[in-house]
Amino acid sequence: MGDLGVKPLRVELGERSYPIRFAADRLAGLPDAIARILPAGPLALVTNAAVGRRYLPAVRDGLRERGFAPLVVSVPDGERAKTLRVAERVIGRMLAAGLDRSSAVVALGGGVVGDLAGFVAAIFLRGVPCVQVPTTLLAQVDSSVGGKTGVNHARGKNLIGAFHQPSLVYTDLSTLRTLPPRELRAGMAEVIKAAVIRDARLFARLERDIPRLLRVDVAALAPIIRRCCEIKAEVVAADEREAGLRAILNFGHTFGHAIENLTGYRRHKHGEAVAMGMVLEARVSRRIGMCGGAVVARIEQIVRRAGLPARAPAFRRDAWRRAVLADKKRRADKIAFVAVTEIGRVRIESLAVTDLLAALDRERESR
Amino acid sequence: MGDLGVKPLRVELGERSYPIRFAADRLAGLPDAIARILPAGPLALVTNAAVGRRYLPAVRDGLRERGFAPLVVSVPDGERAKTLRVAERVIGRMLAAGLDRSSAVVALGGGVVGDLAGFVAAIFLRGVPCVQVPTTLLAQVDSSVGGKTGVNHARGKNLIGAFHQPSLVYTDLSTLRTLPPRELRAGMAEVIKAAVIRDARLFARLERDIPRLLRVDVAALAPIIRRCCEIKAEVVAADEREAGLRAILNFGHTFGHAIENLTGYRRHKHGEAVAMGMVLEARVSRRIGMCGGAVVARIEQIVRRAGLPARAPAFRRDAWRRAVLADKKRRADKIAFVAVTEIGRVRIESLAVTDLLAALDRERESR
Repeated sequence: MGDLGVKPLRVELGERSYPIRFAADRLAGLPDAIARILPAGPLALVTNAAVGRRYLPAVRDGLRERGFAPLVVSVPDGERAKTLRVAERVIGRMLAAGLDRSSAVVALGGGVVGDLAGFVAAIFLRGVPCVQVPTTLLAQVDSSVGGKTGVNHARGKNLIGAFHQPSLVYTDLSTLRTLPPRELRAGMAEVIKAAVIRDARLFARLERDIPRLLRVDVAALAPIIRRCCEIKAEVVAADEREAGLRAILNFGHTFGHAIENLTGYRRHKHGEAVAMGMVLEARVSRRIGMCGGAVVARIEQIVRRAGLPARAPAFRRDAWRRAVLADKKRRADKIAFVAVTEIGRVRIESLAVTDLLAALDRERESR
Repeated sequence: MGDLGVKPLRVELGERSYPIRFAADRLAGLPDAIARILPAGPLALVTNAAVGRRYLPAVRDGLRERGFAPLVVSVPDGERAKTLRVAERVIGRMLAAGLDRSSAVVALGGGVVGDLAGFVAAIFLRGVPCVQVPTTLLAQVDSSVGGKTGVNHARGKNLIGAFHQPSLVYTDLSTLRTLPPRELRAGMAEVIKAAVIRDARLFARLERDIPRLLRVDVAALAPIIRRCCEIKAEVVAADEREAGLRAILNFGHTFGHAIENLTGYRRHKHGEAVAMGMVLEARVSRRIGMCGGAVVARIEQIVRRAGLPARAPAFRRDAWRRAVLADKKRRADKIAFVAVTEIGRVRIESLAVTDLLAALDRERESR
């Protein structure tokens, strides 16, 4: 990985600490990285058809050469793979193949594969190690770091899950070269989020380099991706189970989730909903007196330049209300709202749901 | 609880420490005990029809008086409740009722309810607090302590699960008075196990008092149940996730699980299978030179006096082989066999599965 020049990062979680390694060689280094931390033996390799077609043969051969017996489990594409039923099916395959407590799970794919396979690792025989190999920008900068795993319930996304830290995250930037442009842009929303909540310099760099980043210039992307992981790792290390600080990672997600919920999770990609959510939450932040208009303008502009939607659909008030009340982060009638105070800085405000909706109303009326 | 004269016990697990409280007043003290540790609000009360009929009205009223909004979820009786499907249904009810991350789960019932509801608490919105209220002897001395939760898979029992420590275990001995005698005896198997693995004095006390215990003499039972919890708590505190010492709790369970597996989990209660497993594992311990015949004889005698079966069914060698290989505790071709060395003392021997089966063969031929 010397050529990439990006040092590994360590996520500090006491006895659950683990490294994030960076590479750009079509996963050629993955089998060795796995062999360094796991004993040879049976291993579940969870992936989907699109990713598997591209990378599986080499990864599987490499693992076999190092004494592993990889069981490949392919799961459906997209959110429909994130169900308890699919998790049970994956576990059934693992049991049938004789995997035991000394086995591990490798999640090779985007956020869906990572969430599902991570959850399987969390509940298979009450927990086995997991290696995350994120192949989308969204997964590389966000979902593979932090140990959140889970599946959806008919009533909403990620309502069933577990905190299960991986033993290793192996991030290969070359996998981004074949990512559909819309997926890449969606991942950029979480990059922007990281900058808004914690790092004004990173934000300025995005303003300067966004065209190069969208062209998957690996040299430009590598330090950005590492910095996003570092920000997330710091926040997670300070608050593993989301008792406080970790909530800042939800910037853009309160309204983002509501938008996804109200459009049936079909119209927008997660990152697109987060992009609209960030702009709207910045507006509400200004509305409740937390920041000025320049902050909102910069956020809206970078969102647009990343090719992401900036304006939320025009839902009715009761729809917003219903969706916000369905938020997992709501506790009774309060919600931890992440307000921007300046670029690189946010504050968690415990807002009554009614006050949040009132601010949203005023914002909508002014448009 | 002064009348019962049994002090609470603390399970020491750092920030996951929790108390086990003992009472004998038909759960009259439960609502107060819950109110002392959980904020008022919505609460899932998971139980089954038989237990619910007897205790639910008073518990529910008591909780309501203290500001809780209990959602009662009744699950089927027996092992068939322990599936991902039932867990998903319980979670669906909780979501529909608006329970959120500030809510908790109360498991009111035997081991099945405790395992299922504990697992639901572990995976609902990535984990909420759980209160275990065990109403069978087996659950009171064993399954409610230690944080193991889970459901079954078509391929075997408890293959899906999580470690999720409760916030409180509330053990009311008066619930044992209405327990069917066969259930009570089955629970006694885990009491015997606790004595064999850790406490020769407890074993001698069982030899003296077993008739009183089987009559549910609460004064005699209370210190015994507390001591069993203490033994389990000590072992779990030393080794929460079963890396080493905790394996001693599996005494009687290697063959016990095999017997359950080979009889389709229908013929014998878990405790009955463990009773046969303990006698057989004691015999194998003697066979591999770990203890003398007197130890085996005392174990076999107390099992018989508790009204439990002592002789395992006569399965064929390949059936034993298949069942032992299916054991969750197997790692590759080795199994951590819990050998008795004397009453009150065991040792974990890493045995090749073939050696274990050979010892079993010799034992069977000698009979």
